[in-house]
Amino acid sequence: DPMLHEKMKIDPKYRSIGILGARTGAGPHIMAADEAVKATNTEIISIELPRDTKGGAGHGSLILFGAEEVSDARRAIEVALKELNRTFGDVYGNDAGHIELQYTARASYAINKAFGAPVGKAFGLIVGAPAAIGVLMSDVAVKTANVEVVGYGSPAGGTSYSNEVILQVTGDSGAVRQAVLAAKEVGVKLLEAMAGPAPSSTKPYI
Amino acid sequence: DPMLHEKMKIDPKYRSIGILGARTGAGPHIMAADEAVKATNTEIISIELPRDTKGGAGHGSLILFGAEEVSDARRAIEVALKELNRTFGDVYGNDAGHIELQYTARASYAINKAFGAPVGKAFGLIVGAPAAIGVLMSDVAVKTANVEVVGYGSPAGGTSYSNEVILQVTGDSGAVRQAVLAAKEVGVKLLEAMAGPAPSSTKPYI
Amino acid sequence: DPMLHEKMKIDPKYRSIGILGARTGAGPHIMAADEAVKATNTEIISIELPRDTKGGAGHGSLILFGAEEVSDARRAIEVALKELNRTFGDVYGNDAGHIELQYTARASYAINKAFGAPVGKAFGLIVGAPAAIGVLMSDVAVKTANVEVVGYGSPAGGTSYSNEVILQVTGDSGAVRQAVLAAKEVGVKLLEAMAGPAPSSTKPYI
Repeated sequence: DPMLHEKMKIDPKYRSIGILGARTGAGPHIMAADEAVKATNTEIISIELPRDTKGGAGHGSLILFGAEEVSDARRAIEVALKELNRTFGDVYGNDAGHIELQYTARASYAINKAFGAPVGKAFGLIVGAPAAIGVLMSDVAVKTANVEVVGYGSPAGGTSYSNEVILQVTGDSGAVRQAVLAAKEVGVKLLEAMAGPAPSSTKPYI
Repeated sequence: DPMLHEKMKIDPKYRSIGILGARTGAGPHIMAADEAVKATNTEIISIELPRDTKGGAGHGSLILFGAEEVSDARRAIEVALKELNRTFGDVYGNDAGHIELQYTARASYAINKAFGAPVGKAFGLIVGAPAAIGVLMSDVAVKTANVEVVGYGSPAGGTSYSNEVILQVTGDSGAVRQAVLAAKEVGVKLLEAMAGPAPSSTKPYI
Repeated sequence: DPMLHEKMKIDPKYRSIGILGARTGAGPHIMAADEAVKATNTEIISIELPRDTKGGAGHGSLILFGAEEVSDARRAIEVALKELNRTFGDVYGNDAGHIELQYTARASYAINKAFGAPVGKAFGLIVGAPAAIGVLMSDVAVKTANVEVVGYGSPAGGTSYSNEVILQVTGDSGAVRQAVLAAKEVGVKLLEAMAGPAPSSTKPYI
């Protein structure tokens, strides 16, 4: 419907829309969407970060893919759903809060849309909740390796008022991975000091 | 107090204020307020949509009525409270999320204030949470009947970062009702596919 | 790291940062930070108010102190943590919501940063959640004593879409204290009428 497309700010060239949404989790979905865009003939229309009581201190997500063919939109969702198990691998949580790490050697258009990170370069995402943990993780990350800061989100800017600090870095792939892993170490330590074991949601992948 | 009224942006002509608030629910309260405005000598001062952990994926509400006489403000609240049982009738939910449908053959000033919909015309409200459900419901609604889209809200715009998509339609009363009912059907189906029965909060009225 | 400091908008003169964060509570933390700033050689860099599912209808907080010496930053956090027990004293809650009252005879830089209230003057904070309670408390406060309204926050402005109304007042210290206590009385009454006893979180201090 052209009137709805206009209100949704969707380019009419997309005849088919793929929808990826969640009540809990945004980073894992963006990373999964990034692989889906690499693997299919689709584009990212929009990435939105709702707050949801199921999301604890963090975000949910609503990601729209545009495609000219229905089969492409469907394929993008299939790829993304398959990736989610992996991209939840470095989400660690307990009653005190949660942290999240993401890493890719080559960012694509979902990461670019969500964070403004350069396409084709290594990308790292560092999230800590409550926000104070994220401040400390960010500090460790940039001191550990020579990475470039793409963005920094905190409750009042760059998040939907979530209780998170979110750092995005790019640069040499080795350095980005090293920064992410150093942030993970301090983040897990802080969570565990506050409320005991903070296990991975699935299986660490970085 | 004139200083407080000024900070609250309340016209000093209102000597009495009626307050309708909730931790859970915004659409039902706006629709109920709409009936209250029709039935009393009051005006809508403001409609705000807080997020609240009691509200699940959705909004709470704060609606202020202005009146010159205390008795009018009180009467507006009485009418609104009586309407709420009805306007919660097409709110359906389960553990996966919730949907909400509202319909009136003749919108009044609360609906106009909240959504910009034209006064005196039929109005339909279609809400789906998580947001992905709302996207699909919106799509079905506009394909089913010849309605005019008044507004479209999503997590990043038109909501308070809630995990909802909210569509507002106007037009011929038969078409609006048909669009709303088609959206309801697909919304209930999606919720039930994800998490079993999704009953009405009270009793369907549309 | 200069790049991170720039993204965080932190003046490079601060060689050390103190971090005070919480999942539940903002007012108590701002008041505690205010005492910390009075007592140490630090400045307030930023005060942010996240929403968090642990925060019920209200906010969490992220407060950054800047200092030239590590020992000053550490001392500020120690002072603030010690104050928190007191500043939670006039937070009252039950299942219906919560209210919060704060009072100081002499506001300092944290209160100024958070609310724009004048430094060195008496300051009172009045919070009611759900927001409807805060509207009534605000009304009583300004009618009770001759205070000046510094600010008024509601779900759509001056909060992070929380379900609260927040009034800030300044003026003569006796009047401010009187306004705050009158608001407390009506707020506790409303909460208790809705859901039974609404005890203090720690011990009332005002």
